[in-house]
Order: sequence, then C-alpha cells, then structure tokens
Amino acid sequence: MTRLLVVGADAAGMSAAHQALRTAARTGRHLEVVALEQTGHTSYSACGIPYWVAGDVDEPDDLVARTPARHRDLGIDLHTGMTARALDLDRRVVTATAAGSGAEVEFGFDELVLATGSEPIVPAWARGSDGALIRGVLPVKTLTDGSAWLDALFGGAPAPLRGVVIGGGYIGLEMAEALLRRGLEVTLVTLDEVMATLDPDMGGRVRDTLTAAGIKILTDTAVTGLSTRADGAVSAVHADGVELEADVVVLAMGVTPATALGAAGGLPLGGRRGYLPDNRQQIVDGVWAAGDCCEILHRITGRRVHLPLGTHANKEGRVAGTNIGGGHATFDGALGTAITRFSGSGVHVEIARTGLSSAEAAAAGLDVMTMVTEGRTASSYMPEASPMATKVLAERTSRRLLGLQIVGGPGSGKRIDTAAVALWGGASIDDLAGMDLAYAPPFATVWEAVQLAARRLADRL
Amino acid sequence: MTRLLVVGADAAGMSAAHQALRTAARTGRHLEVVALEQTGHTSYSACGIPYWVAGDVDEPDDLVARTPARHRDLGIDLHTGMTARALDLDRRVVTATAAGSGAEVEFGFDELVLATGSEPIVPAWARGSDGALIRGVLPVKTLTDGSAWLDALFGGAPAPLRGVVIGGGYIGLEMAEALLRRGLEVTLVTLDEVMATLDPDMGGRVRDTLTAAGIKILTDTAVTGLSTRADGAVSAVHADGVELEADVVVLAMGVTPATALGAAGGLPLGGRRGYLPDNRQQIVDGVWAAGDCCEILHRITGRRVHLPLGTHANKEGRVAGTNIGGGHATFDGALGTAITRFSGSGVHVEIARTGLSSAEAAAAGLDVMTMVTEGRTASSYMPEASPMATKVLAERTSRRLLGLQIVGGPGSGKRIDTAAVALWGGASIDDLAGMDLAYAPPFATVWEAVQLAARRLADRL
Repeated sequence: MTRLLVVGADAAGMSAAHQALRTAARTGRHLEVVALEQTGHTSYSACGIPYWVAGDVDEPDDLVARTPARHRDLGIDLHTGMTARALDLDRRVVTATAAGSGAEVEFGFDELVLATGSEPIVPAWARGSDGALIRGVLPVKTLTDGSAWLDALFGGAPAPLRGVVIGGGYIGLEMAEALLRRGLEVTLVTLDEVMATLDPDMGGRVRDTLTAAGIKILTDTAVTGLSTRADGAVSAVHADGVELEADVVVLAMGVTPATALGAAGGLPLGGRRGYLPDNRQQIVDGVWAAGDCCEILHRITGRRVHLPLGTHANKEGRVAGTNIGGGHATFDGALGTAITRFSGSGVHVEIARTGLSSAEAAAAGLDVMTMVTEGRTASSYMPEASPMATKVLAERTSRRLLGLQIVGGPGSGKRIDTAAVALWGGASIDDLAGMDLAYAPPFATVWEAVQLAARRLADRL
Repeated sequence: MTRLLVVGADAAGMSAAHQALRTAARTGRHLEVVALEQTGHTSYSACGIPYWVAGDVDEPDDLVARTPARHRDLGIDLHTGMTARALDLDRRVVTATAAGSGAEVEFGFDELVLATGSEPIVPAWARGSDGALIRGVLPVKTLTDGSAWLDALFGGAPAPLRGVVIGGGYIGLEMAEALLRRGLEVTLVTLDEVMATLDPDMGGRVRDTLTAAGIKILTDTAVTGLSTRADGAVSAVHADGVELEADVVVLAMGVTPATALGAAGGLPLGGRRGYLPDNRQQIVDGVWAAGDCCEILHRITGRRVHLPLGTHANKEGRVAGTNIGGGHATFDGALGTAITRFSGSGVHVEIARTGLSSAEAAAAGLDVMTMVTEGRTASSYMPEASPMATKVLAERTSRRLLGLQIVGGPGSGKRIDTAAVALWGGASIDDLAGMDLAYAPPFATVWEAVQLAARRLADRL
C-alpha cells in the first residue's frame, strides 16, 4: 500500500488526489490518499468570488465544485482545518497543526503532493498595529474573503459609498465591476497601465471604457498608506500625494506562491519563489507539486513563469495524479492565455490575451512586429456586430505568431482561443490567416476578425 | 500590358481582381482588369439574405460590401448586365450577351478568372409550364431573390400565413427562423435529418429545438410536387403522400457549381461538377478559378469537395489574384468548418461543425471513435452559463482529431474555431485537451467545454 499525502484541497490538490486513485485503479496499484486542508472549504472557485460580491452568484456553496463530504465519499481521507507546518523529507513526514485544539499531528507519506496555492500580496500599510488587516481592507482570494466582502457591503449601517481598488489586473477589474454594480463610487489605482499584461495601447482602450462607465482611474500611481477613522476602519487611501476617500478597499495587487512549507523543508524555489517541478510535476523523488504554488514553463520563451490560474492548476494536478497512480502524463506548459470582462453602467468590454506582450517579446530578445486591426464580431449589417480591436504580434524574420490581444464588445474575447491554439502549434501568421474558421453573419465577418488581423500584419511583413 | 478578364463580380472574382492589381503594383507588372457581371450587383453577402428577410437588415445596400461604382473607382473596368456565354481557349476570348440590347460582345484576355459561383438546385416540380418558378416558390441566393421574398411577405394582401421550407441545411434553418420571426406558421421538410452535415444524433438535437420553437418538421421526406391556386400561386407542397398547405415555399435544397461556361469551353470538371484548380487556383495555363464554382481540397481526406462558402471564395480569389499579379500564394484546403443558429420563439440554438462527420470518416476508411459531452459555455454558477453538447471524433489508433460538432446555447457555436485550428495543425485529442485556453467564469468552465469533450474521449481511447 502506497500512502499519498496531498497538502491543499483546492483544484490542484484534489485533481491530483482523484486522478491518482483513478489511475491506480487502472494500473492495479494500491493507493491510500490523505489530504490536509487548512480552511474548511475544498475545491472552490476563487475566480467566482467577484461575481458573488457583484450579486451574480447567490450562495458561496454555488462556488464549491466538491464539498469535503463528497471528497470523503470518493475515497479521500480528508482533514480540514489542518495546517501543514513542517516538511521532513528524510523522515517523509509532514507535521500539521489542527485548528481549534492546536494539536500537532504527524502525517507520513510515500508520495507527497504540494498544492498549497498562492497568497495575496498584502503591503505593510494595509495592516494595523496588531498585524491584522485594517477594517474595510480586504483581499479576494478565499470564500472567507467573499463572506467578509458581503459583510462589508451589507453587514452594517451606513452602507459603504466609496470603494478604492488597488491593482489594475484581472481581479482589480472584476472587483471594480462588482463594487460599481453594487452602487459604490469606484476609484482604481494601479502602478502601471490598466491591464498591464496587455500592451499599453490595448490597456489604454480598457481604461477608456472603465472611465466611460464612471470609474475614476489613477495609473502609474503607487499607494503609500491608509488613513483610518476613530473606530479603526479605513477612511482614505494615500496614493502618490493624493488622498482618496474610501469606505472599502480592494487589495488586488497580485499573489505569490505559498511555498514556505517546501522551502523550509529544503526544496528549491524559482525566481518567482514557486516550486519547480519537471513536466511530470515531480520536484524530487516522490515529491510532487501542482497549481498556484508552482512556476510553469512558458512554451514560447522556454522560461519559468508564475501563472496562477485554475486551468493550469487542474491540468497540473491531473498530470501529477496520473504519474503517481502509475500512468504517464506531462504538463506541456502555458501561453499566458487569459480573459476577463468589465460590464456595468451600460458598457461591456471583453479583454483577452495569449502569448507574449511586446514587452515580454523584447525581454526574450525577439524581433517583434505588431499591428492593431479594428474588426467586428459579426457582419456589419447584423445587430450582433460589436467592434473589437485585435493586436497581433509576430516575429519579423520567421513570421511566427508570438501573441494576440483583444479588447472589444460582447462576443469578442473568447476568440482569443483561436490564437491560443495556433500559438500552441507554432503557427505563422500566414497559417492563421489561411485557416478554415467558422463564418455566418451573426457570428463573424467573412474574414474572421482574428484572421483579418493576422493577414494585415502578414501583408506588412 | 496584361489583360485580366474576370467572369463574376462577387466575393471570389472581385477579391481576385483587386488582389491582382495590388500585387501587380508591387511586382511592377502592367495589368488591366476587366470584369463581367450578369446581374447589376457586385460583392454582396448572399449569407445575409435570410437576415434581410427576417428584418435584421434594413436595406439590400447594407449587404453590398462594394458597389459597381466603387469597383470602377478602384480601377476595375466592370461591365454589369453582361452574361458570359462562350469561352474560346484557343482564341482566348469570352463572348457575352448584354442585358437589354441582347448584343453579343467579345472580351479577349491574357489571364482569365472564372468566378461564376453556384446556382440553387431547382427541381422540375418547382417550375410551371412556362419554365418559370411557380409564384410563391423562391430560392435564397441573389439580392433579387431577397427583394422577391420581401415582396412575397409584404407586397400584397392577404399576407402569407404558411411557409414551407424545403431543405434542412444552413439556408433552410435560417429561412425557417426568418419566416417564423415574420409571424408565419412554418413547416420544414428535409430528405434526411435536420442539419445532415452533422451526425444524426446532433442533428436530432437541433430538430428538437426547432420543434420546441413551433416549427413542424418532416425528416426523411421527399417533396414530389406542388399544388397551385387558380391564380397560379403555390397552395400546397406534396411530401411523401402528405399535403402541406403553403402560401410561400423556400427552395433550400443546396446549390451546384455554375460551370457551364468552362465545361463547354473544354475545361475538366470534378465529381461535383466544379472546376478543379491547383493550389494556386489555376486550371490550365492562364485560366484560373475561385469561389463556389470550384471544388476544393479537404485537408483531412485529401479529396475534392464542394464547399460553397464566402470564406473560401474570398481566400481563393485572393490567392488567384496574388499569383496573377506576379506574387506567390496557395490555398491550402478546407475543413468543412461551418456555423449557423436558429433563434426565435424564445429558443436560441447555435450549431457548428468542423472536420469530418462520422459518415464522412467512415467513407474515407477511417476507424473513428466518437463521444458526446454535455458542457457549459460559462461556469455553472454564472447567469451566462448555457448548455452545449460537444461531439468529438477521433481516429482510434493515431488519436488524431478528425472532427467536432457543437449544438448549444448562446456563446457555444464559435468555439468550433478552437477545434478548427487544432484540426488544421493535425492535433491529437490529447494535444487539444492539454492546450492553454482562456478561462474566466463568464466565458468558460475551468475545463473549457471543447477540451473537456476531447479529454473525455481521450480517456476512453
């Protein structure tokens, strides 16, 4: 009997656990799976929290794909409220602390999966003298955070009127939408341009849309501190000399891999402080990692990047589980594909990207050509037609597609997958322009917008 | 000076004409372009006609991408109302008849592009003793057809109450939607299942949706004749012994390549009676063809197929024009990618396919495995989530993706492009399942529906 210990019971950990059991059943291995989870929740959608705050999702249970009870029914020996504190690779033991009792418990393992996720970045100024977050200042990471948000919005009188979002990335935009839809006046403060994973010209288009929706935006602005009321709650955000009144503050400054356990246990970390598993998700013999705590291979640059996304977490967990169960699977890297939207106050913009941005391409030493093409999501004579801007990036000499970015109306964003599949296969922009994609008047222009953009750049190269 | 003569001034012909001029300007060739068009219209969207009939499009001019005047401004010597009657390859002359005068005119050429399109199939029973279509019986191919449809619906009293659509393909469905949205009782009669380019189980899902919208459907049914009123207008459709009352009848039984000109001039035709150009779109030295009058290479089977679609017409025309102008371009085949929708009476279904159907795979001698997976267009907790069924087809031994079909709600259909790009590059279902596609709760499930379907089939293979 092999004992698999999984630390962390969200997407990556539980994908690994169940896939290991399924594969072991097929390969005839005897496997026992123990899982430790520090919260009381398992397998929940962190990505759904902004939509819960916005009111699209009724119950936190709706965000839970599988409850602890369900995991146990499926054969996982799951311990919730159990925080892993120490890893001893020689003795092959994880020591954990039980919530409530504070008792220390040792869990031995033959195989170990580290799926400890990531933690939101919390600057020192966000904490009070007791070390806790100042009241009204909240991250957006766990179901507990989601509950705290609903409590902040509806838990007491007076209701908050002004929200400040710190961070202009995916979570920042989604929370700006949530607070706007909940009737707050919203200011967004970001160190760079809005959506800095896009090129600045495309990020600027996003910013224009948010501004049109009534969001006040401060770009290239750092937050330096907070003011509090007599009762200790936040009252203002200090941003490069400006004081922004705030009843609630969203901390959306990104996340870092939660790798303290493994680092203290002697495992090496990468430049972003993530675990560095091989393509089978193994770090050292019998020790595996999956999800937001890992750095992953960027398929275009060959470098390690930190892309904390549920899609990768699920795939990495599945790969780890297959290999642990005696099968064979590899995780073949990522492209940085991502999508979000901002929808509120009569505007709707979809934002998507895949591959390298201009800055990333330059950093990788690639000679990149770019072009923005204005297209439409449907034939111009159809009511479904909405504008979309498509930026294509290609390598000048090889004509290889390097990246693509979309900012547009309803129906534009998911077209990014067309480019993602092309990138995955190493297509040139000429290949992309020639492909047989779907056309009918309600769905596309006769030269599909993504192809039109590729063709226009191909004509110039 | 080289004289290029283009016969047919819609998508393929005019793409070829303008691209030839652009390329010649770049390569320094001297090119004169003459174009003949039998109607008075150029570069119009035939695909948009059902939406014009339905009321989405206000004016036929909205369907015209470029008017005759615009083509002339751009340097094309365009003759409308000029029907090409004979091709003499030895003398390099096309003889045409001018509308109105009936005068015969000869047009010499150095290079010839045949872009004569396709013609709707019109059975003998649809014509009266004078050879003309029976009144109330109309195809859906030209702008003149579109005008006739609006006239049939709104041109006189009493307004038509009952419409019978003959044909269950793309145009049939779109016209069923148009007539339903115009308030008619609609019956659809088809020789096979609805949407016979899909597998029958997926076509059956489409049929169920149409039935739910109130369309009466007769599958596996042949039309054998029509009844007419005393005034000569259609009154009923005879379908395998059933008599269906009808005030208007849609002829949507498909199209055939319009290749009489070239065939009489000695050019070879394929099994579907289309021209057979090479991958540069050349048939014989200096004679080129593009668009619906051609058969094209299916990338998976390597066989010639007839896929009369504007996307191919535009690309083929562009390829022909590039080569005629002294550049180099190839048309690299098609996958049979297609999309449509049916929307009306509170239902909305999107229908898309790419690659081979089960029947096509079997006919090509491939050992095919298939699976239908029920998925969603967005995270299940989001209001945007709508169900979608995805059928994946793969070759058993090689695990190569062979085709994919989607029947689902809003936002499902255009995901077919993900599979189309994967097919274009020869991906396996394992490749498709592992790719980095875009996820956020309003746009996809964490395992994107198309990938989930590929993964499920991969697990079984």
